[in-house]
Amino acid sequence: MPDRFPLPDYLAQIHAALEKQTRMILGLHSGTSADGPTGAVARVTGAGETARLDLVAHRTFPYPRALRELVLAVMEQRTGSVDRVCQADVAVGVFFAEIAAELVSEAGLTMDDIDLVASSGQVTYQVIPGQRPEHSWEGLPQYMAMLDLGDGGTIASQTGKLTLSGLRRKDNAVGGFGAPLVPFGDWVNFRHPTKDRVVWNIGGICNATIIPAGAPYDAVWAFDAGPGNMVIDWIAVEASSGRLTYDEDGRIAASGQVSPELLAHGLRAEFINQDPPKAAARQLFGDRFATEFKRVGQGLGLASADLVATATALTAEVIARHQSRYIDPKCRAAELVFSGGGALNPVLMQMIAERVAPTPVVTSDAFGVPVDCREVFAMILIANETLHGRPSNCPLATGAARATCLGHIDIPA
Amino acid sequence: MPDRFPLPDYLAQIHAALEKQTRMILGLHSGTSADGPTGAVARVTGAGETARLDLVAHRTFPYPRALRELVLAVMEQRTGSVDRVCQADVAVGVFFAEIAAELVSEAGLTMDDIDLVASSGQVTYQVIPGQRPEHSWEGLPQYMAMLDLGDGGTIASQTGKLTLSGLRRKDNAVGGFGAPLVPFGDWVNFRHPTKDRVVWNIGGICNATIIPAGAPYDAVWAFDAGPGNMVIDWIAVEASSGRLTYDEDGRIAASGQVSPELLAHGLRAEFINQDPPKAAARQLFGDRFATEFKRVGQGLGLASADLVATATALTAEVIARHQSRYIDPKCRAAELVFSGGGALNPVLMQMIAERVAPTPVVTSDAFGVPVDCREVFAMILIANETLHGRPSNCPLATGAARATCLGHIDIPA
Repeated sequence: MPDRFPLPDYLAQIHAALEKQTRMILGLHSGTSADGPTGAVARVTGAGETARLDLVAHRTFPYPRALRELVLAVMEQRTGSVDRVCQADVAVGVFFAEIAAELVSEAGLTMDDIDLVASSGQVTYQVIPGQRPEHSWEGLPQYMAMLDLGDGGTIASQTGKLTLSGLRRKDNAVGGFGAPLVPFGDWVNFRHPTKDRVVWNIGGICNATIIPAGAPYDAVWAFDAGPGNMVIDWIAVEASSGRLTYDEDGRIAASGQVSPELLAHGLRAEFINQDPPKAAARQLFGDRFATEFKRVGQGLGLASADLVATATALTAEVIARHQSRYIDPKCRAAELVFSGGGALNPVLMQMIAERVAPTPVVTSDAFGVPVDCREVFAMILIANETLHGRPSNCPLATGAARATCLGHIDIPA
Repeated sequence: MPDRFPLPDYLAQIHAALEKQTRMILGLHSGTSADGPTGAVARVTGAGETARLDLVAHRTFPYPRALRELVLAVMEQRTGSVDRVCQADVAVGVFFAEIAAELVSEAGLTMDDIDLVASSGQVTYQVIPGQRPEHSWEGLPQYMAMLDLGDGGTIASQTGKLTLSGLRRKDNAVGGFGAPLVPFGDWVNFRHPTKDRVVWNIGGICNATIIPAGAPYDAVWAFDAGPGNMVIDWIAVEASSGRLTYDEDGRIAASGQVSPELLAHGLRAEFINQDPPKAAARQLFGDRFATEFKRVGQGLGLASADLVATATALTAEVIARHQSRYIDPKCRAAELVFSGGGALNPVLMQMIAERVAPTPVVTSDAFGVPVDCREVFAMILIANETLHGRPSNCPLATGAARATCLGHIDIPA
């Protein structure tokens, strides 16, 4: 830089972060279940092949009731009006900035210790051409588009930190689904020089990342398989008249019987029977699917607990089928690794274990990744790559035409 | 930077742009009328006090019919569903990238000549707490929020250039309306050491920027006054059964009579009678206002041409009243400068001239700013400030709590 330009503050901050041996990055992510964001602070060294993450602190912060209801309203075409999109985008940004401050304080740190904030926001709405015909607008092509709420400008302004957000848009821009974004983080955290690794996440949707032994990043693949917790949650909310938000510890499922007829009905969903690569818009297994699932079950004379048990079996069967059809022929993992809220449901995990036996089933904690941190770790590592000007999407997973840097940068000033 | 980190490409691009004596910036903007974006390429030198802009090429590109209809649908709460917001955000981004390429080619340049793209996108929806009670979501505070369509990631990806977009969000984040954003550009392009300057823009909404003689930027003020072309356009579309999109050259207005009763009705709108600072959400003078204006006019027995003439007089009267009430007491401009589509409507300009006489009325062309370029020039100059890490919003205009850098940066890689 010539003398006539002092280095602008934001550039000085980027340079300082890059020059550090270890960067402190604060990540924020809220998935399709919309229970509330998980925040994590981590020390990150290196980039690309040398990237490494060490967890400092993490916590999941439930949304206040009113904010969760607004977020859920925005997720549905019928209730997601433009004024609500605008309001929710800022309201989620404000909440993310607040929990960032809380998390930093709980960790015994101050914002001065943070080099960068990485926010993938609240997953909200996804357009995948062909998945929902009502999305088309006459005379225009459909485009991949994914809306994450939580304005990065608001987060940068209120935390006072450089903020990377909108992490899915550039993958959309090169024709990708914008999801899953976990592969890069999975490659950093789970890869092994001589062992194949398979990592399943059970969030609202369930997905798998496959990391062949010693693979470079561009040999990693991933796909969404079908419903994770979404249908189970929806039925549990209905069955409890809104008292529960999910089937805690699988207690309702444990008290019911799986219906083979209803399970077979669920498994006929078109998406579940498609070959990867594929990604499921949250709306694909939302209200409409769950309502129909319940209607068919009630037609079979099933009680509420049976509906929950069968929804749980549906997720287990979806995972087992995709494992045997698409993953086992290409890769032999010593164990299947699970993360996401579903990994905390013992009834679901037992159902999966029975179906994939004799392969053992473990949670990601065994690899230093708390089950609720896998996605936020991915977002932290993606932001670290972008800071270095490196691509981090996974074209084999998202169907993108090429690798690309993810996210945009908001300046705190 | 230590040797172990080669400067990432995006940082090298930012440094290169800052080091240049003259930067070539391509700006894109589409206002509340949603006719289509204006693109401009300009040479920019300096920053802050020394910023200067020289126009290289500009053109307004009408939206294809289907895209304009989608944009208009997203502007209304009733038709602006989340799936359309997602689709329009990408579709507008794709269109902006296409016209960027066309404009560069028309100017005899290539994208290699462009240092930075500045896009304020398509103004779409604005939430201003208190202006529209139906925006409130029970249990949550209202936040300033403004949605501009035209994903910056898409533009960066398709143009291959560093892109600044989302220019209003950081002003929202510090409590500002997010509009008007023109003051910085006006200060650069119109200020004078010894003369007061008043610059009116007549887009969908009309607004004024006041630049006292020799004023530093933080003494500039601005406000939205009320409807600009929006109501005139709406009535002209209705009167022509959709054959026209606006009253070209004011021909319909010229053939009608202004109704003092209907004019008085229009002038009773609450917003018009509020004191500045103030900003008008486009929706404030949208379908609902125009429908009521027409209904009252028809009740008075007015013909279509009378309605158009009276809508035109309403804009003229709004400008004249705000000029005499709020501007004249504080500043004496030798002439009033006009820009925006309304400046090309001779009937409207004549009505304004009569009301502000003896002060002469001129268009911004006299100051080197084509009437359709004033806003896009502002966006180009804002991006140049952000590149330098400098704030460029106008707290006296937007009501923001403080000055802030505007926009987020998308990396092309």
